[in-house]
Amino acid sequence: MVSQRGLQSITLESPMRRCASATNWTFYDPSENPTAPINLGVAHNDLLQDKLLEKISSSLTITRKDLDYNCAYGSIILRDRVASFVTRQFKTAEPLVADHVTAFTGAGAAVYYLSVALADPGESIMVIAPYYGMFDGDICGGTGISLFPVYLPTLEDNFVHENVLEEAFERAKKENVKVKALLVTNPDNPIGRCYSREGLETFARFASKHSIHLILDEVYALSTFSHLDTSLSADTVISAKEESDDPFTSILSLENLSDLIDPSLVHVIYGMSKDFALNGLRIGFILDQNNETLRSVLHASAVMSYISSITDRTISNFLSDSVWIDSYISTNRRLLADSYAKISIFFKDHGVRHLPVQAGHFVFIDLRPFLIQKNGGRPPTLKDEQELWQTLLDNGVYVAPGEAFRTKEHGFFRITFPLRSDLLELGLDRLYKTTVGFGENRVIKESQALKASK
Amino acid sequence: MVSQRGLQSITLESPMRRCASATNWTFYDPSENPTAPINLGVAHNDLLQDKLLEKISSSLTITRKDLDYNCAYGSIILRDRVASFVTRQFKTAEPLVADHVTAFTGAGAAVYYLSVALADPGESIMVIAPYYGMFDGDICGGTGISLFPVYLPTLEDNFVHENVLEEAFERAKKENVKVKALLVTNPDNPIGRCYSREGLETFARFASKHSIHLILDEVYALSTFSHLDTSLSADTVISAKEESDDPFTSILSLENLSDLIDPSLVHVIYGMSKDFALNGLRIGFILDQNNETLRSVLHASAVMSYISSITDRTISNFLSDSVWIDSYISTNRRLLADSYAKISIFFKDHGVRHLPVQAGHFVFIDLRPFLIQKNGGRPPTLKDEQELWQTLLDNGVYVAPGEAFRTKEHGFFRITFPLRSDLLELGLDRLYKTTVGFGENRVIKESQALKASK
Repeated sequence: MVSQRGLQSITLESPMRRCASATNWTFYDPSENPTAPINLGVAHNDLLQDKLLEKISSSLTITRKDLDYNCAYGSIILRDRVASFVTRQFKTAEPLVADHVTAFTGAGAAVYYLSVALADPGESIMVIAPYYGMFDGDICGGTGISLFPVYLPTLEDNFVHENVLEEAFERAKKENVKVKALLVTNPDNPIGRCYSREGLETFARFASKHSIHLILDEVYALSTFSHLDTSLSADTVISAKEESDDPFTSILSLENLSDLIDPSLVHVIYGMSKDFALNGLRIGFILDQNNETLRSVLHASAVMSYISSITDRTISNFLSDSVWIDSYISTNRRLLADSYAKISIFFKDHGVRHLPVQAGHFVFIDLRPFLIQKNGGRPPTLKDEQELWQTLLDNGVYVAPGEAFRTKEHGFFRITFPLRSDLLELGLDRLYKTTVGFGENRVIKESQALKASK
Repeated sequence: MVSQRGLQSITLESPMRRCASATNWTFYDPSENPTAPINLGVAHNDLLQDKLLEKISSSLTITRKDLDYNCAYGSIILRDRVASFVTRQFKTAEPLVADHVTAFTGAGAAVYYLSVALADPGESIMVIAPYYGMFDGDICGGTGISLFPVYLPTLEDNFVHENVLEEAFERAKKENVKVKALLVTNPDNPIGRCYSREGLETFARFASKHSIHLILDEVYALSTFSHLDTSLSADTVISAKEESDDPFTSILSLENLSDLIDPSLVHVIYGMSKDFALNGLRIGFILDQNNETLRSVLHASAVMSYISSITDRTISNFLSDSVWIDSYISTNRRLLADSYAKISIFFKDHGVRHLPVQAGHFVFIDLRPFLIQKNGGRPPTLKDEQELWQTLLDNGVYVAPGEAFRTKEHGFFRITFPLRSDLLELGLDRLYKTTVGFGENRVIKESQALKASK
């Protein structure tokens, strides 16, 4: 009744999608959904919602022209403003112009259309793992493309070992996997770390050596905060020194990029969802400065992911106020830093280890000790992780398990932190109580956890 | 540098896309673009723009919730309102509910995702021809699906001969073409005619016999007007009798559908672009009442064509006022009828034949006599049609040539009529003068035509 590729798109294994579906996308709200789970699993950022809502509301206009067809891949005004913004904030080596920007209905759609534009059925995209779990659906859903994960040696650091990449490429060759691109998320997801300039150079040399495309997903580019002094309050201006310590380096900022790789092989994903916390507006971009043929393909496919003239104009208006935008980004970094400091202290105080974070909306925590305790010293299995995840959900808190990011070791969970403090505290309380009870083989009933939380 | 399917998507033969691209999507505007061609080629409807702009403006709101992820295939509120609206206006045999509606960023995207959900690479969709030319890109672009056109015997009527369908199916078999679906546009495009109930039943029986899907593109469903007395003014209420004479029948209104075909094979395309003249907002729907598996596939793919929360809320608000909506549709029909009457008189007065129209935004005119005159009696070729089309464009008027709809006979052109009268008159003047000059082998220079038009 449906095509093979259609069937594959709904039956493909995507742990992140499976977990998210289990929540029915309905989350706790004190008045509207008091019994739904608290959402610590989806990456979002509520810290500046009031300011954003006010600014977006005042950017919301429609003109007569907007009733008729707009450019499918974004109006020239929108693309021009994105180009200026990215040039300024990413400190690109060459200025971006409107032509370098193709808009899609979200970064996920951008990843999908870029993948299809670069790889044919049966081909593969190498991805640095653990990786953002929605790539499973975005890249492999109905496309015939597979993902070929490459794990850096440890979760503890993300130093890019050239030999790890080379070994993976050799393994792919042996398995008859035809790799068309290397996909790197920077700052990464789920750990929230940035690659060094040297790391990026290694990726570029590797991609160049094998004549494959290099895709950088930079959707958390401007959500770095580890270089800030968190004792400062949110409205303190970031000093020049702090800015120079920003751990994020865009691939587009490398002055020597064309010495490392044919720059027509390099493409960047960006969007409004993460740095601007506008998940709902569905605006993503592919930034490409050197590949006209690819851009033609993307323009043709943008018709299937055609952004609404209303949203186009709203975001165009929004980005026109560069003073507001730059100030928002500074404030957002500061608030992320404060928020991260708080959750980090919470976990330290409760004896929960987490990996250090430089950027993004989440912290990757290590709950293996609780699983080991539960199972009398046995190393945690995937099934153990799944059981704890389900117990957490049953007890009113949704988190993203390591499985969703294809971690090799089981027992890690990604926790979203830039949230309203009442929600976050309630969520962390449920998380901790449930985990301790789980480790001690005590059955925590939902009602108990919910009661304890109040 | 790009995938094979990517390359195919930009090199595939799509005469409509080629023609539209030649305009660079820039059209005449007295103040902003006085030298660009007048757009009589793209289907649009300016007749109620003031009312629409006012209503959409007042529907434009955003709430805190809209900042975060919405449902990819449309909020429950949007889908619920679309379901009610379609049930009421299409007079569906069974009421639609929200679950039956999947939203995409436009009807074109809906056609694309439905095609991919039903057909695999190497398979084909049979389409009644002449057909809407953007199907070439929407269905065949990068998908590996081909279109298999079936021509009804004449352009003069659209009676559905069962044997024509059967012969086509046999021919497809012989050519090893695996047909997965029959695609019918009703009311049709480019001619603007509706299929009778008997015609729809023939399509359904045919699809059932061969176990293929039946897709009805009903985007002009509520733009029928041939049943109205055009001497009445626009604000006259349509009488009950007139309503019962409406030439449009939705496939969803057939009480006996399940006697004719397994209804899980029947799917409808709808959208806000045509009946509501909101091309720019990019909202299309797939209506399906009986195929849950297909809907799951569509839900998964909707993530790649994710509608913006702002647009979702705007259209939800817009559709909530059913009194306004129903009155808009009545008024729009009346204005379309008046506008069609005017252009029909113009062509009659100027000795240009056109095919009778029941619905839509365009009239299909027959300029073959001018081509025959030019070439001393020789029947027109595709090249003749292309030359006239180019001359028209050079002389400041963009129309859609028969080629864009894959007509077998050459010399037809589709002319959009529900436009501001100053634009339409100027466009028709340029069209007529250029065509006459072309027929008489007189070179009409752009400056002359433009001057003559003033």
